[in-house]
Amino acid sequence: MNDDTRLQVLGLSGSLRKHSFNTAILHAAVGLAPNDMHIRVRTLEEVPVYNEDLRAEGYPVPVQALREEIAAADGVLFATPEYNYSIPGVLKNAIDWASRPPDQPFEGKPVAIMGASPGRIGTARAQYHLRQCFVFLDSRVMNRPEVMVSGANKLIDESGRLTDDATRQHIAKMLEAFADWCRTMK
Amino acid sequence: MNDDTRLQVLGLSGSLRKHSFNTAILHAAVGLAPNDMHIRVRTLEEVPVYNEDLRAEGYPVPVQALREEIAAADGVLFATPEYNYSIPGVLKNAIDWASRPPDQPFEGKPVAIMGASPGRIGTARAQYHLRQCFVFLDSRVMNRPEVMVSGANKLIDESGRLTDDATRQHIAKMLEAFADWCRTMK
Amino acid sequence: MNDDTRLQVLGLSGSLRKHSFNTAILHAAVGLAPNDMHIRVRTLEEVPVYNEDLRAEGYPVPVQALREEIAAADGVLFATPEYNYSIPGVLKNAIDWASRPPDQPFEGKPVAIMGASPGRIGTARAQYHLRQCFVFLDSRVMNRPEVMVSGANKLIDESGRLTDDATRQHIAKMLEAFADWCRTMK
Amino acid sequence: MNDDTRLQVLGLSGSLRKHSFNTAILHAAVGLAPNDMHIRVRTLEEVPVYNEDLRAEGYPVPVQALREEIAAADGVLFATPEYNYSIPGVLKNAIDWASRPPDQPFEGKPVAIMGASPGRIGTARAQYHLRQCFVFLDSRVMNRPEVMVSGANKLIDESGRLTDDATRQHIAKMLEAFADWCRTMK
Repeated sequence: MNDDTRLQVLGLSGSLRKHSFNTAILHAAVGLAPNDMHIRVRTLEEVPVYNEDLRAEGYPVPVQALREEIAAADGVLFATPEYNYSIPGVLKNAIDWASRPPDQPFEGKPVAIMGASPGRIGTARAQYHLRQCFVFLDSRVMNRPEVMVSGANKLIDESGRLTDDATRQHIAKMLEAFADWCRTMK
Repeated sequence: MNDDTRLQVLGLSGSLRKHSFNTAILHAAVGLAPNDMHIRVRTLEEVPVYNEDLRAEGYPVPVQALREEIAAADGVLFATPEYNYSIPGVLKNAIDWASRPPDQPFEGKPVAIMGASPGRIGTARAQYHLRQCFVFLDSRVMNRPEVMVSGANKLIDESGRLTDDATRQHIAKMLEAFADWCRTMK
Repeated sequence: MNDDTRLQVLGLSGSLRKHSFNTAILHAAVGLAPNDMHIRVRTLEEVPVYNEDLRAEGYPVPVQALREEIAAADGVLFATPEYNYSIPGVLKNAIDWASRPPDQPFEGKPVAIMGASPGRIGTARAQYHLRQCFVFLDSRVMNRPEVMVSGANKLIDESGRLTDDATRQHIAKMLEAFADWCRTMK
Repeated sequence: MNDDTRLQVLGLSGSLRKHSFNTAILHAAVGLAPNDMHIRVRTLEEVPVYNEDLRAEGYPVPVQALREEIAAADGVLFATPEYNYSIPGVLKNAIDWASRPPDQPFEGKPVAIMGASPGRIGTARAQYHLRQCFVFLDSRVMNRPEVMVSGANKLIDESGRLTDDATRQHIAKMLEAFADWCRTMK
């Protein structure tokens, strides 16, 4: 039983690197969430490379766990790097696993997308590719505010803390909008 | 020493499934290549999930092999499925690994893209996302002819042989154009 | 005063050609709409080429009319051709005009997208570019069912009537989903 | 007869606004071109809204002129704004006109793309959509260096002069690469 009436949001980072900027902004989001939202961050580290033949034998344990957590969540929050002008393979691979039948868990699911990069574009190119995936998956991706953190290396300290106030406020604002979005789309 | 004066093309399929339609058209391409082109198919099966921290310790053996084969090739031929309206995570993950420094092997490399799907769109959405990756990687992606094999389940038999004549001729024509493209872009 | 309690949908075709396939499927949609939806088709013929300096002098009459009709509508239904693998300039130009301040009329607006082409892809490439526009415009674009009519020249007769039953049923189904979508997103 | 042995590049701006940032960087490019390149800027102002029925009666004079200048050029340089996260309708409309038969003039043509915007993304989203058009048109679009001028309002003075040195140098560098590209792709 879960007495927690807060919105339960699953946070997924597209980078497995320990000092990842995207994992850092996701952890910042946990602390910046409005009172009625709880964000739980889950690593994608143990998700294996997708193979349909492997799937036919049953979902691997970490994939099954991921699928169940997505299904149970009121919304999913992605923090995605941009690799080669698109979605990281790591993140896309996890989505490919999670989205297979039965009971595709992204169906109708509220989704928000953030991204951080050292460069100037702030993962925009990855984010629009990701949005196209969620057309197929029939999710409800929030349009705005978009969170594209550029120059991330200057905004996050060595311990992985997002120290920049303007970025923190922007993420807090996005999360408030996402709380509304999750409640409306329910 | 290699006395083979034919164009050496590396063929990569974005699916690990044994009865993959994309691996099937890639194998068809091997037999349909013009006389001056040799296509070697390489599996991506052993490429692990990308992790920058892992990379810092040195490229895993299958990744290093992939990088060297791309670098040595006169061109790279992709056969990509479309998962969730984009590039499969498996394929993107391999590209993410292969494209890291030093000596990014896709730089200036001639590239051709094919795809097969049971549906009607023939992986078009995945192919345009893939093309965007190669802008960043500064590869030379051939524009035409595009190969988007739709209704693939009816064109490939149970042994994985592409039996449809029109599709075979279309792939042969693309490969001829790709031979010209590889020689011109050298 | 308007006693019509039906959903009022504005239909916009991206082609000005008299025998346009897209105008044809839009007119088919008028007759296929569910009982609680009324679709009014509006031509973009008189919308001039966008010029910000011209806009500074006030919206041209046909643009002002377009803006007001979008604002008043419960939803907007697009039928878009694909030109050069993207949105037709004609349609994009009309959207560029309509979306300028004050009171950007696409904000929060339910949107559905159809397309027809003689080729096989059924304007998919144009439709995904169009979807990206509506991220910026903060519209509510329905994900499914997608309507991508390929081989349109064989499905539409010389008088511009969509004669193919399967396509008619598919459009009817999409319009039913769109009626739900408009009511939910209100 | 033309005794000018320099590369002849046609420059097209996607904005008709008098104080357009994109027309400004295009004019800057004229002065920054290497010695062996001449850039001629052409306005798209007189290109009417595309209508296939109109085209059937023959190309309007300004369209015919545009088509001939593209065909005659050694390369085409675009400066594109971003409207609604995509290509401006004005520019797309001109490309739609120019690319119709016979003798599609973008076939095999070297193309370079720049863009300027007051915002942070520097028209990236428009540029990738534009690149997709040139896959269909079988042009040779240069990958790098990309020119995405953000914060353009601070870099261009009231007379329309690009005053920022770093941006000027970046454009000069791109034009040098484009001169090589035009000669290689010929």
